[in-house]
Amino acid sequence: MADGLTELAKRRGFFFGSNGAYGGTAGFYTFGPQGAALKRNVEDAWRDRFTIREGNREIEAPTIMPEAVFEASGHLEGFDDMLVECPECGESHRADHLVEAVTDIEDAEALPGAEVEDLIADNEIACPSCGTPLAGEPVEAFNLMFATDIGPGDAQPGYLRPETAQGIFVEFPRLKEYARGNLPFGITQIGPAYRNEISPRGGLLRLREFTQAELEQFIDPEEDEPPLGSVEDVAVRLYPATAQEADDGDYLETTIGEAVDEGVIGSPWVGYYLGVAQEWYERIGVDTDRFRFRQHLAGERAHYAADCWDAESEVDGDWIEIAGFAYRGDYDLSKHDAHGDDSFTVFKRYDEPKTVERATVDPDMSVLGPEFGGDAAAVADALETLAERDPDAFDGEAVQVTVGEGDAAETHEVDADVANFAVEEVTESGEHITPHVVEPSFGVGRTVQTLLAHAYEVDEVDGEARTYLSLEPEIAPQDAAVFPLVTNDDRLTPLADEIAADLRAAGLAVAYDDSGSIGRRYRRQDEVGTPFCVTVDRDGVEGDGPDTVTVRERDSAAQVRVPAAELAAELAALRAGGEFESLTDRYGAVETNVETTTET
Amino acid sequence: MADGLTELAKRRGFFFGSNGAYGGTAGFYTFGPQGAALKRNVEDAWRDRFTIREGNREIEAPTIMPEAVFEASGHLEGFDDMLVECPECGESHRADHLVEAVTDIEDAEALPGAEVEDLIADNEIACPSCGTPLAGEPVEAFNLMFATDIGPGDAQPGYLRPETAQGIFVEFPRLKEYARGNLPFGITQIGPAYRNEISPRGGLLRLREFTQAELEQFIDPEEDEPPLGSVEDVAVRLYPATAQEADDGDYLETTIGEAVDEGVIGSPWVGYYLGVAQEWYERIGVDTDRFRFRQHLAGERAHYAADCWDAESEVDGDWIEIAGFAYRGDYDLSKHDAHGDDSFTVFKRYDEPKTVERATVDPDMSVLGPEFGGDAAAVADALETLAERDPDAFDGEAVQVTVGEGDAAETHEVDADVANFAVEEVTESGEHITPHVVEPSFGVGRTVQTLLAHAYEVDEVDGEARTYLSLEPEIAPQDAAVFPLVTNDDRLTPLADEIAADLRAAGLAVAYDDSGSIGRRYRRQDEVGTPFCVTVDRDGVEGDGPDTVTVRERDSAAQVRVPAAELAAELAALRAGGEFESLTDRYGAVETNVETTTET
Repeated sequence: MADGLTELAKRRGFFFGSNGAYGGTAGFYTFGPQGAALKRNVEDAWRDRFTIREGNREIEAPTIMPEAVFEASGHLEGFDDMLVECPECGESHRADHLVEAVTDIEDAEALPGAEVEDLIADNEIACPSCGTPLAGEPVEAFNLMFATDIGPGDAQPGYLRPETAQGIFVEFPRLKEYARGNLPFGITQIGPAYRNEISPRGGLLRLREFTQAELEQFIDPEEDEPPLGSVEDVAVRLYPATAQEADDGDYLETTIGEAVDEGVIGSPWVGYYLGVAQEWYERIGVDTDRFRFRQHLAGERAHYAADCWDAESEVDGDWIEIAGFAYRGDYDLSKHDAHGDDSFTVFKRYDEPKTVERATVDPDMSVLGPEFGGDAAAVADALETLAERDPDAFDGEAVQVTVGEGDAAETHEVDADVANFAVEEVTESGEHITPHVVEPSFGVGRTVQTLLAHAYEVDEVDGEARTYLSLEPEIAPQDAAVFPLVTNDDRLTPLADEIAADLRAAGLAVAYDDSGSIGRRYRRQDEVGTPFCVTVDRDGVEGDGPDTVTVRERDSAAQVRVPAAELAAELAALRAGGEFESLTDRYGAVETNVETTTET
Repeated sequence: MADGLTELAKRRGFFFGSNGAYGGTAGFYTFGPQGAALKRNVEDAWRDRFTIREGNREIEAPTIMPEAVFEASGHLEGFDDMLVECPECGESHRADHLVEAVTDIEDAEALPGAEVEDLIADNEIACPSCGTPLAGEPVEAFNLMFATDIGPGDAQPGYLRPETAQGIFVEFPRLKEYARGNLPFGITQIGPAYRNEISPRGGLLRLREFTQAELEQFIDPEEDEPPLGSVEDVAVRLYPATAQEADDGDYLETTIGEAVDEGVIGSPWVGYYLGVAQEWYERIGVDTDRFRFRQHLAGERAHYAADCWDAESEVDGDWIEIAGFAYRGDYDLSKHDAHGDDSFTVFKRYDEPKTVERATVDPDMSVLGPEFGGDAAAVADALETLAERDPDAFDGEAVQVTVGEGDAAETHEVDADVANFAVEEVTESGEHITPHVVEPSFGVGRTVQTLLAHAYEVDEVDGEARTYLSLEPEIAPQDAAVFPLVTNDDRLTPLADEIAADLRAAGLAVAYDDSGSIGRRYRRQDEVGTPFCVTVDRDGVEGDGPDTVTVRERDSAAQVRVPAAELAAELAALRAGGEFESLTDRYGAVETNVETTTET
């Protein structure tokens, strides 16, 4: 982020590196009061759009999960980064990043470790910290999961989840019951995820602990269609793989409906959620001129992911990934179905029962027993498997089956008569299918960082430079601030206190400030993006009518005088998306320039 | 919890043991869709009361913290439970619990390990799992923190925080800046905490990962008073230490004001938060007849905690701790001030600058140097320390100072003249003080468990037994459910869909159900505590006036017909605490018994 914004983020309590009193801990940030409120507002807005309005269901799973889950998911085996350590200073580095920095290679992570070792040697890459040559140092796969032990004694290994998604997948057998077995249904989760990064980056960009908001949409790939009509006209800026490969930097400005129709977006479900996300990002204040959906290149996406797009925002000239949208097929549920004890399928009832032919065997064990001894049962099993797989094999007089594996494999010949092969007609009311998964996955911290970067403004008010955050009222840390105009007035301070308490009782997040000139107080609130400042002044208290206060809008610095009795309702309406101009229309703008003329 | 409720919690998606497909993981629970929504509503209600309405500030700190933090906090050294392992089956047990189960000892944890070993032998305690005698097995201190490694290579040890509080304390140097150095101020945090329990208990009662909502109120112990007036009339049931020791089980039914006045509650700040908590628990639906505040016994509380009370609720005949309120003095900040690099004090400005006398020395090094050689600087330092501590020592002709420690300690005599002792008058504008901490700490999961237990009801409607959860509308997982009365009507289903979408767009959490008889659908919603069911029927669509729907209240099963256009606003008002009777008054009750007469 821009230096000014980084400084502001720390000074005004948005976020800062954790544990500063103990020298700091790389990769960990604490959200201060402003940042935590902003982050929570982003999460609430996400929940409103992706859970409540979609009719999806949110769960909350533990962050520590047992090893078996990550054996199944593949994280134990493959969730690695390339590590090279400096033999001199001991500093750890991402080997692929070192190589990418000095070569034309864009995705060194995809190379074998040995090749990266060669590239380090060939390019005479040295330790960025101390300058020692790294040639000859081993490049190792470093697993990014934080490990711990669950329980005492013969503890079982556990890991902090590297993504919230596994907490959803692993409970699919129960979650499908809550959906009464009906597809499609969506499960969401917002919560911490952990990656023990080799080289954490500054700010909220690459942390070791971060917050994800994930939606796992479970669908029947043959039947379920998304409600694409509701987003077909949403305009999006796409950066398809073809455009990236052509390297002309041209975006495709189109609509969701067209992009899906023309096959630019391969999956209608992915297209649907890109449309929903586009509208959502606009609603929370992402600058659409600094936003795009970029398709993954073929080499970039996981083998099981048919179509992947990232939402990317521009922050300080760099494009950063702030969300990913992947069609993951049946990869996740199939893995858990194979490893876990429960069923990760759903029973799909046919419209009408189907009659199907099923090949069966009923081997005569009184023949197989004497003939094959200890292998007899294995031979019977092999006949059964063969009947299912290749019924034609039973057309001849004898069938051949193989039992045992590897060196112990032995092929036996069995009389077809002995197998008692038959084809039965059976009626099936449905079948067990493994749902496919469409996964929109959002980084909450990166969204916060984007919103701050896109809201950071410097302008001039009353001849003075000011810095302000033009955050949407729904997202701003405070809904409003309340000030007594001056603090040496016995009537104003208690009235301002009371107004602040009333607004808080109405559920609004309200700052109270009575320190320094009114202009300075406005500036302080501008800096944290408070959309409305309420000032209690003598004009409002001494008038004949109902007590009034002034309400100042942040971006325009325009003011309006509002009856105190209407204040909570008006502020709530503004927070919900109402226009400040409507207040000006109804109550009349205040001409007096309170900002610069009055000091305490 | 009652068996019926435990079964309901699992079947209807409140919570269940995690990772069932992998055999389950003791001490970890997943909140399903209903439970996660309920839990979030509890958290939101807590935030509303303890953060927003108090004008406090919420932060969000990482869950992984470095070892230095827990060296300072004392958790590394002392956050242990007593572990004994069975030599035969390897099962781990809480040694103190085994002893308490067979003796009269109530707090075996307070005994030395060796004594507990003796008690195990003397009482012939056997392994509860396999019956093997445990006599002679070592009782060990098992640290309850989950350990992990941060970063690769020369990783630094880290721990999952055992309480959210440390994430607040450790950032105090920055948080005080956000409060511009002014006391009192309060910082809150809601988030996961972790304890690697030796023997996790069932349900949400003793988990290895759980959610805390904590408030750290930082105060100047000499000046700051809580706004006790706002809660002085709140009625509370207290169970003071004296009553527990008398063992007559008598509660003290009193008010917060009286209890503080009479010194039953030692700290007005603790009293204030007990009052706030009492009102909050009532608001969210805790049965006050099954609720009390129990004071810690002298042996029970930490040495630094001057006054401690627990909020306890009765669940299945047991009293469980659901919150703790402790006056922690300056313990936490002093510890971090001593261990950390930053200052954990605040500068307290005097009303008027004070003139104080300060004793100083200005030792003549040209004399000390030749006389004491290498010790000269140490002698000068010792003179300075002595002047601060005991200025009278300089009254005589010579002073004696000791330099070095232990065996190397040496006492030197110095001429008073050489020390150049003087008393100066200095003006001080204030002093650095270490704030005291008042800590209300809430267990969110235990609150959820209490609410479910207290809301679980069985009654009879239309001659049929029904189970329902009488949860407060603010807390219930869903705000409302929407049904088409029958599903084979082309007009009702799209209208019901539309109404559900409208309510969701208005921010309400809405379930939609079109499966089974209307009576069955009501029962399903009753079981998850949905306060209002909206049914779209032909009467509402075919009438002449505006389209109407019926709204059924859960506890009374009473119904009212409401204009569809008013529905979102009416439901929002009910959620915010409005009375269902006011709808009946305005719209008139529905006499028809829709529940049992209509089937799809």
